[in-house]
Amino acid sequence: MPDHAQPRTRSIPFDAARLDALMEQAGLDALVVTSKHNVQYLLGGYRFAFFDHKEAIGLSRYLPVLIYPRGRPDRAAYVAARLESFEHQLDRFWMEDVRTVSWGTTDAMEAAVGRLRGLGLPLRRIGIEPSFLPFDAATLLRDALPETEWVDAVVPLERLRARKTAAELELLRQASERVVAAMQQAFAACSPGMTKRAVVDVLRRAEVERGLTFEYCLITAGTSLNRAVSDQVIAAGDIVSLDSGGNYNGYIGDLCRMGVLGEPDAELQDLLAEVEAVQQAARRPLRAGATGDEVYAAAEAAVAASPNRAQMHFLAHGMGLVAHEAPRLTGCGFVPYSGFDAKRPLDAGMVVSIETEIRHPRRGFIKLEDTVAVTTTGCEGFGDAARGWNRAGLG
Amino acid sequence: MPDHAQPRTRSIPFDAARLDALMEQAGLDALVVTSKHNVQYLLGGYRFAFFDHKEAIGLSRYLPVLIYPRGRPDRAAYVAARLESFEHQLDRFWMEDVRTVSWGTTDAMEAAVGRLRGLGLPLRRIGIEPSFLPFDAATLLRDALPETEWVDAVVPLERLRARKTAAELELLRQASERVVAAMQQAFAACSPGMTKRAVVDVLRRAEVERGLTFEYCLITAGTSLNRAVSDQVIAAGDIVSLDSGGNYNGYIGDLCRMGVLGEPDAELQDLLAEVEAVQQAARRPLRAGATGDEVYAAAEAAVAASPNRAQMHFLAHGMGLVAHEAPRLTGCGFVPYSGFDAKRPLDAGMVVSIETEIRHPRRGFIKLEDTVAVTTTGCEGFGDAARGWNRAGLG
Repeated sequence: MPDHAQPRTRSIPFDAARLDALMEQAGLDALVVTSKHNVQYLLGGYRFAFFDHKEAIGLSRYLPVLIYPRGRPDRAAYVAARLESFEHQLDRFWMEDVRTVSWGTTDAMEAAVGRLRGLGLPLRRIGIEPSFLPFDAATLLRDALPETEWVDAVVPLERLRARKTAAELELLRQASERVVAAMQQAFAACSPGMTKRAVVDVLRRAEVERGLTFEYCLITAGTSLNRAVSDQVIAAGDIVSLDSGGNYNGYIGDLCRMGVLGEPDAELQDLLAEVEAVQQAARRPLRAGATGDEVYAAAEAAVAASPNRAQMHFLAHGMGLVAHEAPRLTGCGFVPYSGFDAKRPLDAGMVVSIETEIRHPRRGFIKLEDTVAVTTTGCEGFGDAARGWNRAGLG
Repeated sequence: MPDHAQPRTRSIPFDAARLDALMEQAGLDALVVTSKHNVQYLLGGYRFAFFDHKEAIGLSRYLPVLIYPRGRPDRAAYVAARLESFEHQLDRFWMEDVRTVSWGTTDAMEAAVGRLRGLGLPLRRIGIEPSFLPFDAATLLRDALPETEWVDAVVPLERLRARKTAAELELLRQASERVVAAMQQAFAACSPGMTKRAVVDVLRRAEVERGLTFEYCLITAGTSLNRAVSDQVIAAGDIVSLDSGGNYNGYIGDLCRMGVLGEPDAELQDLLAEVEAVQQAARRPLRAGATGDEVYAAAEAAVAASPNRAQMHFLAHGMGLVAHEAPRLTGCGFVPYSGFDAKRPLDAGMVVSIETEIRHPRRGFIKLEDTVAVTTTGCEGFGDAARGWNRAGLG
């Protein structure tokens, strides 16, 4: 085990000044971060194996806890699972205080409380993540620090992550390109008589083969609008939509591509062209300084001009470590923060997912979803291959 | 969408009488189940794609909620994500009341509260899962039902799952056999100059190729006792331990096997034989009616007789949908429930993971972990192949 008594000088792997400013604005003295994505971000990309898959362990669950006192990164701490002692031996953490002690939620929070009490700093208001703080850990924290006010820190943390670094952009590019390459492989493997489940199995393996963690695939075949993985058999002439998420070191590739078992007829060509027109319209205004409203106005004008506008749906949302994160280009009605970036200028380094679909009652589900990075002069698509009709059986 | 007005007669996929009895014993009027593993269990093996990977969605996280009123499975309900409407269309749920409405934790719990209020049944005491109930959903439930007392239902639910059905045993057998087959493939691929990371990449792909969801791999090489995935280079003559968990439809295969790049010398043969002796000693008393104490007494006698007892560790624990679940064969000091099965007779259909390791200061980390099902007459190993020294480079 490393010697905890040795203070280390280590560069902080995120923009601490920006985090401090966001915390100041929210009136936060310290953060108690318990979501895997924000822990990963504040640890500079660190990703323990349990970040991907592990929920339950014994009667409890894995809970990483990162403590960050505003303006005092030198007093930050990370409370980890016992198995993370092996990562600690390899010197993978930037902070001095790392406690690899936990099996579950309450022993993790007990160690975190110990650190918070030992800080000797004012803790009038602490930021928590309400959806990522288990009830038992919350109760323990409440009882230990009854005077402390809790504030939802999810939005400040999301704002911190909104502008991606060059390294993050590269991870998102890799994630997107690899998902699309895996889809091309899956379309190539499609043949009449295969089930949707079998196609998803090919896609899953193709994603893993490319170093991705496969997360999910929504799939339609033929004229059905049902997107579940099932034993539906694919027939000659069917169209197939693949909408899959896979992550590359936590960064999400989430795209949709279309395939067909045979040659697409003129109507299918037209339908995909309609979708493509909306996708391209959304990209046109996208650049640093544009607002969410401008992106939506351009896309909605294209939808309005589309023959199938009644069955067409357009959506644009930020993405990164989380599917559907900042920028928040439009309101969706269920969180007060939604639409935050509708009237604000976008920044270079923000990454947006744009999706257009037609739920065609006679021809089936036709969709493109693309990942687009905002630059100072425009935008750049990640994984822009295979956006037409992919012929099944062609490698 | 299915017509919710049509009541359906559907068989309940778990032992409802046993669940009702466990709830009676704990004084529970209803369960509000929010862990993925218990939701899967109570839905008869249903496993949405988000059960494996999805944590964050937007500002919140995926939260399935299953409501079960004691003695009234006809009034059970499942609150699901909107995307699960496709699963609902395919008629995958046994209960009549399925609400595919949620994006995150609070809208899920709002729908669950709506159902609880509409039950018209007494709700004096409800069972929750404290580590799997997010703080924001807990607050919403508390405010909506302020008179209701909350009780930890994790132990009754774990007892419900302790005896596996024939179908569950087959899933655990498949999981174990496939993990071991993947390990054999990974050992075969080992060669001097490979990093530990590269070996784990082979294992990950080999597990996915076999239909498993890869969860994690602890790996050592040479004389090091560090089990993290890293860029440590493996050399000729090194021993390699692979301890990996992968799940098959949620059921966990978790085993450890040993490899060597070359021929094992006499000392290595002896060390693995010592480990094997403890593993076999633990199996000997294992049968329906035996107690956890008897298993531990046999294993500990074998440890005491071992030349390397000072560096030797033995552990036995139940497994299934969760690593480290019931039966609870021994106390581990951090939960009151631990050791529950130390003095109680084990049942046929319980599944136990037994692990013995030597942390040898000069030769490295040597371990076997096996999965063993309890039967009426003894026990049966799942995935019992490859328990000696696996030669690297040999297919």
